Amino acid sequence: MDTILAMDAGGTTTRALVADRTGRVHGYGLAGSGNPVSAGLDAAMSSLVEAASRALEACAQPVSLASALIVMAGASSRMPGEQIPERLAGIGVRGPVRVESDLLGAFCSGTIRREGYALVAGTGSVAARVRAGRLDAVADGTGWLLGDAGSGYWVGHRVATAVAAALDGRGPETALTGAVLDSLGLTRSPVRADGRPQVLLDLMDELYALRPVQLSRFAPLAFQLADDDVAHEILSDAAAALTNTLAAVHQPGLDGPVVLGGGLLVRPGSPGGDHTTYLSRALATTLGDAEVVSVTGGVLGAAVLGLRNLGVEVDAELFDRLRQDLSGWSDTAEGTT
Amino acid sequence: MDTILAMDAGGTTTRALVADRTGRVHGYGLAGSGNPVSAGLDAAMSSLVEAASRALEACAQPVSLASALIVMAGASSRMPGEQIPERLAGIGVRGPVRVESDLLGAFCSGTIRREGYALVAGTGSVAARVRAGRLDAVADGTGWLLGDAGSGYWVGHRVATAVAAALDGRGPETALTGAVLDSLGLTRSPVRADGRPQVLLDLMDELYALRPVQLSRFAPLAFQLADDDVAHEILSDAAAALTNTLAAVHQPGLDGPVVLGGGLLVRPGSPGGDHTTYLSRALATTLGDAEVVSVTGGVLGAAVLGLRNLGVEVDAELFDRLRQDLSGWSDTAEGTT
Repeated sequence: MDTILAMDAGGTTTRALVADRTGRVHGYGLAGSGNPVSAGLDAAMSSLVEAASRALEACAQPVSLASALIVMAGASSRMPGEQIPERLAGIGVRGPVRVESDLLGAFCSGTIRREGYALVAGTGSVAARVRAGRLDAVADGTGWLLGDAGSGYWVGHRVATAVAAALDGRGPETALTGAVLDSLGLTRSPVRADGRPQVLLDLMDELYALRPVQLSRFAPLAFQLADDDVAHEILSDAAAALTNTLAAVHQPGLDGPVVLGGGLLVRPGSPGGDHTTYLSRALATTLGDAEVVSVTGGVLGAAVLGLRNLGVEVDAELFDRLRQDLSGWSDTAEGTT
Repeated sequence: MDTILAMDAGGTTTRALVADRTGRVHGYGLAGSGNPVSAGLDAAMSSLVEAASRALEACAQPVSLASALIVMAGASSRMPGEQIPERLAGIGVRGPVRVESDLLGAFCSGTIRREGYALVAGTGSVAARVRAGRLDAVADGTGWLLGDAGSGYWVGHRVATAVAAALDGRGPETALTGAVLDSLGLTRSPVRADGRPQVLLDLMDELYALRPVQLSRFAPLAFQLADDDVAHEILSDAAAALTNTLAAVHQPGLDGPVVLGGGLLVRPGSPGGDHTTYLSRALATTLGDAEVVSVTGGVLGAAVLGLRNLGVEVDAELFDRLRQDLSGWSDTAEGTT
């Protein structure tokens, strides 16, 4: 049977599936981070091979892989071109291996249209315009130091700075203070040192010991305490920033769907479900009557791109079959319902 | 002759002076960074000893050092208590050695009053309330990741993020773009990669290779291009942030002078001169009729604190003598006029 291998090499999890030309998913497999930047090149290569091997082992009958398509952040520039085909040939991938942007993977996981927009907000944030099935323009995704406005890092960083400001009187009191201190096992006390509350010095010690992107761990606190004035302002600003990022790639006359992805916009466990979070509700308001689709990953889009490369026309029927089959496999593999 | 050693252990330069009980400055010396955080403990200790030795060598006649007072960022918590007295004993300091906050040093460099405020904005930013000659409250100084609002880092970071946003269409065009790219030897071109301008990817490579605080190198560009709308907004926000930091330590009824310090507020080469920069002009407007004094360092304040510890009453006459003597020494040593 003639099949393709499709993979989403994510920063935390790598997902692989084996699909045929009719959209049937024959196997599915998971592994750790397949992103060379977050995991290192060797570990990323191992994850790719491991996820692919598991997907192949899960197939009920032997398959012949005509090609592979991998979506990943940073796309082709991050992975040496030769190494992936060599390693995948070792597990039976006979045809061409292509690497595409995870943004394009997210877009194609949400729609079979070839024009539209994607907005992904997880630890980072980035938006893309898609035209003729390709990335046409990208905005932000410039990382924690230079941008990623409205991302998990950005929200978590704003939470941390708001707490520091509250502790030394530069900013208003906020319920975030107690939540952040609790999460770090710190307690407020009347003790002061060099004119400052001791707990602020303790907080500084804790937070400077983290890698900056780890401040994203405080983002959930803003959502949990969204009724707090300071938290509310942070989330409003995040929604405005994400709207601005999406607006930067919008082109009048190009009116395709808007595909939302990433943990800040799409709640895990509700694949394809509607905009369930604060930010995606705010975005939906801004987007008005645009068609908005949520996705929880890029492996479905990788399959769409892989099939198109074989000359398969991905229509609504095939896309639905892919999605439903994938949903069955991933519910089993990942324990979601 | 009975004298004291006074030192300002700065992040770039350590300054030392030898003064007698009448406010005469007998010697002055410079060395590199005396801050253990920026220079490392060994290098900081060496700088302290080197600056002190030079100040002693500059004295026209042999002196007996009754005590030493050192001002530094982070104050006592950063330097092991034993080591400084041991090393200074080796070059003839016989009496007690005390370490005080550089904030208190800055305040006492500007006034002989024992109540008032200090606001220092260089790479970082911090404000203090002084009461009874001691630090009573401190705001900000929480570092690049958590605060330092309105500081050189903060302005430089805003410049960098504004340029990244301009390059991918999220933010308005600004003259800062050309200035930042020029300073890094980068050029704009029509080349795009993965939906982005190639020059933005190049900029990201350059800036992520820096330590974050090094973004402060872009702060001067905002001042140079203050007529640009984006630069103007950054500087206005910086002035508002610094005003907010100062307001956090203000206490009704405590109305002493406001001492301004740091490279962002006080232009080097105009010691004691009036608020010559954009930010200090904006602050002066906010401060209304408060007495505002600018200082270019903390070694004068270290001398004031050291003399007070000996029981010397530092009056206006003594303070003026100290200041004028110091000015003569530092003009010679540092080549300013």
